[in-house]
Amino acid sequence: MNYRFVVKQLGMLFIVLSAILLSIAGWSAIQLAFGEVTEKHPFRAFLIAGSYGMAAGILMWLFTRNTSTRFGRKEALLLVAASWFGGAILSAIPYLIYAHIGEVPGTEHPFREPVNCVFESMSGLTTTGATVLTRIDRMPRSILLWRALTHWLGGLGIVVLFVAVLPSMGVEGKRLFRVEAPGPDPEGVHPHIRETARTLWLIYVGITVLQILALRIAGMDIFNSVCHTFATLATGGFSTHNASLGGFHNNVAIDIIVLVFMVAAGVNFGLYYQLIRGRFKAVYQDSELRLYLTIMFLVTAVITFTIANQPITLTTGETLDPSWFEAARQSALTTVSVQTTTGFCTADFNLWPFAAKALLLMVMFVGGCAGSTGGGIKVIRILIAFKVMVAELERVFRPNVVRPLKVGKTTIAPELRLATLAYVFGLILLFGAGTGMLKLFEPSGTIDMTTAASASVATLCNIGPGLAKVGAVENYAWFSTPSKCVMIVLMALGRLEVFAILVLFSPRFWRSA
Amino acid sequence: MNYRFVVKQLGMLFIVLSAILLSIAGWSAIQLAFGEVTEKHPFRAFLIAGSYGMAAGILMWLFTRNTSTRFGRKEALLLVAASWFGGAILSAIPYLIYAHIGEVPGTEHPFREPVNCVFESMSGLTTTGATVLTRIDRMPRSILLWRALTHWLGGLGIVVLFVAVLPSMGVEGKRLFRVEAPGPDPEGVHPHIRETARTLWLIYVGITVLQILALRIAGMDIFNSVCHTFATLATGGFSTHNASLGGFHNNVAIDIIVLVFMVAAGVNFGLYYQLIRGRFKAVYQDSELRLYLTIMFLVTAVITFTIANQPITLTTGETLDPSWFEAARQSALTTVSVQTTTGFCTADFNLWPFAAKALLLMVMFVGGCAGSTGGGIKVIRILIAFKVMVAELERVFRPNVVRPLKVGKTTIAPELRLATLAYVFGLILLFGAGTGMLKLFEPSGTIDMTTAASASVATLCNIGPGLAKVGAVENYAWFSTPSKCVMIVLMALGRLEVFAILVLFSPRFWRSA
Repeated sequence: MNYRFVVKQLGMLFIVLSAILLSIAGWSAIQLAFGEVTEKHPFRAFLIAGSYGMAAGILMWLFTRNTSTRFGRKEALLLVAASWFGGAILSAIPYLIYAHIGEVPGTEHPFREPVNCVFESMSGLTTTGATVLTRIDRMPRSILLWRALTHWLGGLGIVVLFVAVLPSMGVEGKRLFRVEAPGPDPEGVHPHIRETARTLWLIYVGITVLQILALRIAGMDIFNSVCHTFATLATGGFSTHNASLGGFHNNVAIDIIVLVFMVAAGVNFGLYYQLIRGRFKAVYQDSELRLYLTIMFLVTAVITFTIANQPITLTTGETLDPSWFEAARQSALTTVSVQTTTGFCTADFNLWPFAAKALLLMVMFVGGCAGSTGGGIKVIRILIAFKVMVAELERVFRPNVVRPLKVGKTTIAPELRLATLAYVFGLILLFGAGTGMLKLFEPSGTIDMTTAASASVATLCNIGPGLAKVGAVENYAWFSTPSKCVMIVLMALGRLEVFAILVLFSPRFWRSA
Repeated sequence: MNYRFVVKQLGMLFIVLSAILLSIAGWSAIQLAFGEVTEKHPFRAFLIAGSYGMAAGILMWLFTRNTSTRFGRKEALLLVAASWFGGAILSAIPYLIYAHIGEVPGTEHPFREPVNCVFESMSGLTTTGATVLTRIDRMPRSILLWRALTHWLGGLGIVVLFVAVLPSMGVEGKRLFRVEAPGPDPEGVHPHIRETARTLWLIYVGITVLQILALRIAGMDIFNSVCHTFATLATGGFSTHNASLGGFHNNVAIDIIVLVFMVAAGVNFGLYYQLIRGRFKAVYQDSELRLYLTIMFLVTAVITFTIANQPITLTTGETLDPSWFEAARQSALTTVSVQTTTGFCTADFNLWPFAAKALLLMVMFVGGCAGSTGGGIKVIRILIAFKVMVAELERVFRPNVVRPLKVGKTTIAPELRLATLAYVFGLILLFGAGTGMLKLFEPSGTIDMTTAASASVATLCNIGPGLAKVGAVENYAWFSTPSKCVMIVLMALGRLEVFAILVLFSPRFWRSA
C-alpha cells in the first residue's frame, strides 16, 4: 500500500477545502466592512479553521511531494474513504470554533460538542441533510452558506472535483472516479476520465446557475437562492429555516422551481450530456429514467388520495384546509423530496396516514438514478433486482429456459446480477444493523422502532428527515454520542455505495500484494 | 395444464386426511365407551368432518381416476399449493363444527369464526404454532391431539408422505418432493425418490418414538408426551397449555429432553441417514451443522449475559430470582425454540432487554438446517449468502480474482449463488410487505411496529410467538380477518419456500406450453 500517495492527495484536498474556508472568511470580512453584518465571530471562525487547515494541508503535501503518482485500486479506495472522513472533520472545525467563541457559554449550543459538528459536516458532504441544529434561523449567514456549500461539493464528489481540476492524477484518476461517482458507471459520457469529470462539473455548474436565476425571479433573495440551489442540486436538504422550504410563506412559484430541479438532480447526469449532444432518442428511451418518473408519479398520486380529505399541517405549524390542489402539491413535493433523497419539507408528513408513510419509506430506499446526486439503492438497481426476481420465479417452473436479462437494449451480465442483489442485500443488512444499534445506544424507552428504523434509512440513504422523532419538524440533536457516530458512518457508507467503506474492514484488503 | 391429475391427487389427500380424522373419532368413541371423557361433541365433530371429507375425496378421485399420471413441473407446483390450502381447509372443519355444536352460543369461542379455524390449521400444518386459542387448557383432548397431529404431518410434508406410501406417483414423484421438502436438496440420501421419502419418514417415526419414551420417563403423561413430541419434531410449537412448555411446573428433565429434540429436529434429516450408514466423518464435517450449532451456542451465551442479573418472568406468571443457572436455562430453551422455529415458551422473553430480543429476532430469520423440519431462511442459505457477500467485497479491490465459492467440499455454482440471494431477498421483501399489510389492516393505533414486524416474521418463518402483542404469553385471536388472511398466506409461503406459491401469481405459469 502506497500510504505516502494517500497522504499527499489528502494534503491537496485540505488545501482546496481550506481555500474555500478562507474565501468564506473573505466574504464575511467584506460584509463586515460594508456594515451588512456586525458579528465578527463567524469571520474569525472561518479564518482560523482555514488557516490551520491550509497549514496542515501544505505540511502533508510537502512531506510527500516526491511520491510516485502511480496507484492501484486499493490506494484509490483508501484515499476516497480518507478524503470523506478527513474532509468531514476539516469541514466541522468552523462550526466548532464558532460555537466556542461566538456563543455565550451556557447556552448549550449543539455545535459546542465536536460530534455534533462532524455529524453536521458529514451530513452536508454526503448530501444527507440531517441536522443537529435546533434553531437554524438564528445562525449567521456564513455558517449557513458553508453548510449549503458542503452539500454542493459533496453532491458530485469532492474527489471527482480533484480529477477534474488537478494535474497530478493522470489516467489513474479513473480508479478514483469509479469509486466515488454514485451508482454504476454513468453511460455515454466521454470515455476520457478527466473530460468526463469536467463535463459533469460543467453540467452541474450550469444547472446551478439556472436554478439560482429561477429562484431570484420567483422572489427569493440572492443568499437564500444560492443556499437552496446548492441543497437542491446535491439532493442535500439543508435549508436556512427551521421550517425548511416551508419557511418561504407557502410560495407556489418557489415550490414548483425546487420541485423541477429536485427531479432534475435525481436524473443520471450522463443523460444531460446526451441531451447536449442532441441524442434525444437515447434520453427518451432510457429505461431507468422512465421507471424513476413512473414511481414518482404513482406514489404522488396514491399519497394525494390518502391525504386529500384532511387538513394538512405545514412545517411552520400552520394548517391548511382540505383541498385536492393542496393535497397534490404537498404530496408531490414530499414524494419528490424524499425519493430524490433531498429531504426538503413543507408539510409535516409524519402526521399523514400509515399508507402514505409506508410509501414514503419505500421510495426512501429506491432513491434517484445512477450517476445522479441522489442517494438510496438507485432506480437502475431496483429495475435489475426486480427482473432477476422475475427470472428466478420463472426458473422454478421452467428450469431449462435461459433468457438474457435485458434493461433497455443492454444485456445484464450474470456477475452484475449477483453484484446488484448483493448490493441491495448489503444495504438492507446495514439498515437492520443501524436500526438495532440506534435502539441499543439510546436509553430504553426513549426511542421507538419507527424512529430508529427511519433514522437508519434516512442517514444510510442520505435523505435527512425520517419519521416520528426524526420527522419533518424534528432534528437529530437529541441522539446520544454513540448513536451519532453510528449515523456518521451510515451516511458515509450510503454516499460511497457501501462496499467502498466496507472493504476497509476486510483483512485481505490490508494484506500486501 | 393437467387439472384432472391435480384434482385426482387432491382427492387422494382428502381420503388420507379424512381417514385420520375418522381415526380420531374412533379414539374419542373408545374414550367415551370407557368413561374417560363424558363430552360427546368432539367425537361428533371428527365423525362429521371425516365423513364429509372422505365423501368429497372419493368423489374427486372417482371423477378423475382414469387420468394419466404423467405430470410436469407446473402440475407438481399447482398440486403442492392446492394440497396445502385444501388440506388446511379440511383440517379446519373439525374445529369449526366443534365450536358450533360443542360450545354454548354466546361464549365467543374463537373457533366459531371460520377464518380462525383455517388460521389454526394452517398454523398447524406449516408447523408455525401461532394460535388463536385464548384458553387452550379448556379444549378437549381430541382437538388438542389433532392440532399436534397437523404439526407432525406437515413437518416432513404431507406430499412427501404421499410419495412414500402411494403407488400412483412413479418416478415423477421426485418433482413433488423437490417442491415440498424444506431447503435445497437433502444431500446424501438415497437417490431413488420413493426410497428417500420412505427413509425420511422412517427416521422421523423413529425419533418420534424415542422422544415419546423419553418424556414418559421424565414423568409426562402419555397424552402430553405424544402431543409435545409431535410439536417438537415438526418444530411446530402448539402446546396443550396456555403457558406452553412452561405449564409443566418448571421441570428440568422435560426442558432438557425437549431442548435436545428441538435441536435434533432442526438438523438436516439426511445426516441421520448418514449416521445410520456409519458415515460419522461426513456428519462431523458438515459445514451447515457446525454453523447451526455455533449460532445457537453464541446467541444463547450472549442472551444469558443480558438476562443474568434480573428476575425472570415465566409464561405461567411466576417470577424466578436472578441466577446464572436459570438465565442459562431459559436463554438456551428460548434461543433453540426460536431458532429451530418451534416456538415453545417457558419464559416471557418479551420482557427481556432489547439486545436479547434483537438477537432472537435475528435467529428467527436464520432458522434450521436445510432438509430439517425447521423453517426460516435456513442455515445453509445464510452461509452461502455470507460467502457471496465476502466474495463481492473482495471483488471491489481485486476485480480480476476468480475464486470458486465453496461450502465444505462442494463448489457453489453461480446460478445457486444468485438463487440464494434472490431467495433471501424475496423473503425480506415478503417480510416487509407482511409488516406493512398488518399495520394497514389493523385499526390505527392498535398495533405497533414491533408487533407488526414480529408477527410477520413469526408467521413467514413458521415460528409462532413473536414480540410485544404477539409475544410468548399472547395469541393471534385479536387480529382482524384481513390480517389473519395475510398471515395464513405468509405461513404457506414460508413453509413452501416462497417461490412455490409465488409462481401461482405469474401470468407465464398459467399460459399453456
